Amino acid sequence: MTATDSVGVVSPQIANLDQPLLLQCGKTLRQHQLIYETYGTLNADGSNALLVCHALSGDHHAAGIHSRDDKKPGWWDSCIGPGKAMDTDKYFIVSSNNIGGCRGSTGPLSTDPETGQIFGPDFPLVTCKDWVNSQKMLMEHLGIDHWAAVVGGSLGAMQAMQWAIDYPDLVDHILLIASAAKLTAQNTAFNEVARQAIMTDPDFCEGRYYAHNKIPARGLMLARMLGHITYLSEDAMSEKFGRELRTEKLKFNYEVEFQVESYLRYQGAAFVNRFDANTYLLMTKALDYFDPAYDFDNDLVKAFQQIRAKVMVISFTSDWRFSVERSEEIVNALMRARCDVSSAIIESNSGHDSFLMPIDDYVTSIKCWLNNITLR
Amino acid sequence: MTATDSVGVVSPQIANLDQPLLLQCGKTLRQHQLIYETYGTLNADGSNALLVCHALSGDHHAAGIHSRDDKKPGWWDSCIGPGKAMDTDKYFIVSSNNIGGCRGSTGPLSTDPETGQIFGPDFPLVTCKDWVNSQKMLMEHLGIDHWAAVVGGSLGAMQAMQWAIDYPDLVDHILLIASAAKLTAQNTAFNEVARQAIMTDPDFCEGRYYAHNKIPARGLMLARMLGHITYLSEDAMSEKFGRELRTEKLKFNYEVEFQVESYLRYQGAAFVNRFDANTYLLMTKALDYFDPAYDFDNDLVKAFQQIRAKVMVISFTSDWRFSVERSEEIVNALMRARCDVSSAIIESNSGHDSFLMPIDDYVTSIKCWLNNITLR
Repeated sequence: MTATDSVGVVSPQIANLDQPLLLQCGKTLRQHQLIYETYGTLNADGSNALLVCHALSGDHHAAGIHSRDDKKPGWWDSCIGPGKAMDTDKYFIVSSNNIGGCRGSTGPLSTDPETGQIFGPDFPLVTCKDWVNSQKMLMEHLGIDHWAAVVGGSLGAMQAMQWAIDYPDLVDHILLIASAAKLTAQNTAFNEVARQAIMTDPDFCEGRYYAHNKIPARGLMLARMLGHITYLSEDAMSEKFGRELRTEKLKFNYEVEFQVESYLRYQGAAFVNRFDANTYLLMTKALDYFDPAYDFDNDLVKAFQQIRAKVMVISFTSDWRFSVERSEEIVNALMRARCDVSSAIIESNSGHDSFLMPIDDYVTSIKCWLNNITLR
Repeated sequence: MTATDSVGVVSPQIANLDQPLLLQCGKTLRQHQLIYETYGTLNADGSNALLVCHALSGDHHAAGIHSRDDKKPGWWDSCIGPGKAMDTDKYFIVSSNNIGGCRGSTGPLSTDPETGQIFGPDFPLVTCKDWVNSQKMLMEHLGIDHWAAVVGGSLGAMQAMQWAIDYPDLVDHILLIASAAKLTAQNTAFNEVARQAIMTDPDFCEGRYYAHNKIPARGLMLARMLGHITYLSEDAMSEKFGRELRTEKLKFNYEVEFQVESYLRYQGAAFVNRFDANTYLLMTKALDYFDPAYDFDNDLVKAFQQIRAKVMVISFTSDWRFSVERSEEIVNALMRARCDVSSAIIESNSGHDSFLMPIDDYVTSIKCWLNNITLR
């Protein structure tokens, strides 16, 4: 039985978008497709559309289940549903897989219509700006003329920021969760190690692993293991695993001896079966490239002066990937740009992953903020 | 010309230690050799011996140069020399490469006398306790009957701690810099990713890469890149690299685009030429295994109640590998064990690497503490 606050069984849909999409790198996608899901109903005056943007390894399946016996709901099911923080009784929620993704939108796994071959490593590197432009095509395809809100966590929040800067008239509210106005050198350093892990895997075959019937599984596993360390706080890891041994006595070999090793190996191995290495690479580059100040003389305040949306910024005390200080930079620049900004710092032990978790104060702060929005 | 406060040209020496060394894993090294250097002169009553213990990628060459045109002095040259913090006018300083190392002491690169083959991955996993027992043999070999001080940073400090617990009568003072009484789950997690990077490299050949005339260069490079992220503070990385691009415009490919990528790739590649992968693996395991409380009902206070040495504990504000809190745990347990303990928290932006740097307050605190020691 489906819970009464679940959106229930949902079906992904495909939008074939035939206008050319000029990318930031200079290349053009003549046409592309986006896979997406929607939850709730677009109201008569089209005033209740809310766009959810996904993060690095996310996709379009944000809420609900795909069949009655589907055990695993969408990645933000804790927040999306009737009466939930993102209330489908009020909002018509749109969630798409980004271009460059590996779940059904045009990306490295797609066939390049110009060559008839799979894109693979030839799929162009895309940016948050490109995603926004692609999502805008989806918006038009769905007959939506403005977003009541654009919402995202982490890399998803970067897209929400970019939306409000690039299309100020089309976005009434943005909600930026666990994010940053650009990466730190340390963030980029972690991304680079992940990329090198994938690209130096002999099975990567310069990105043409599909043609060789291979997967750079070792590299992708390492990238994911490393990612998981940065998603969890040190305290959360300690609480979750401590120094617990898997076996009574030390083995003095390289098998799993500590619980945390077992966890990481499991997470790494599971990821290989559900994610594409070329997509992982380009997602990390999209993070590295995000820098809305760049087009405004490296002045974030100037960039934010474009924004007409009201902004809510949420961060988590134990997040060390995008720390509270990074969100404070955003809030301070928004205030200097005279934007309408609210913010909340949520006590949480779960690190960056907090944004995916049903933490009371967090969910409540989203719920209140979205409930208070007057649709226009 | 050599600076007047340098120990000048030094020559490593070899100690052949013929007594069997029973290791914590249960195996025995029938004989082993240690390569070591000494600086200063052992005084007539043998009261001024000071042992320096090295960290993960360190070795016996702690100070001075190996020839007149040697550009690169030992790893702790900033602290060791006549009139320096570890004053060779006062102390006779001993620094050896640990067993399991790759610089001349018995380790994976050595020939197993029982098989006539290189040890490689069959070299037993060693622990801080084993290193202490091996260093004790060197001590006897050198005719030293007690240490005025045992000194180390990071993994080196763990050996100093173990010395004071296991041989309380042989150690008068210990100096513990940038250390921890055991690893956190996050520390072990980083070690595990590094190990998986090396062990999943196809050129690792289950550790028998020498026989295949190969080196697991990709894995060792990744491990070192990752290590470097944890040695530097986030702020130090930001100051050092910021978002500086190597090229004027973004390239939209996977070549180096940011300075931090270039730095990490260089550090990773350089390490491959100077370090052995099997040694790296077992050094990370020695870190994971360090847990002096384990033998004392998991009670660190009980473990420290063995200690008769006076203790100095130094930590650095920006060290997130072994944070100030980890050193405070040590200090608090030492106080509860009624040990004679002093401590200093040094303001520094350089992260864990601070312990290798000539930071004024840091060097001065070592100097004062060591100068004040009354030799017995």
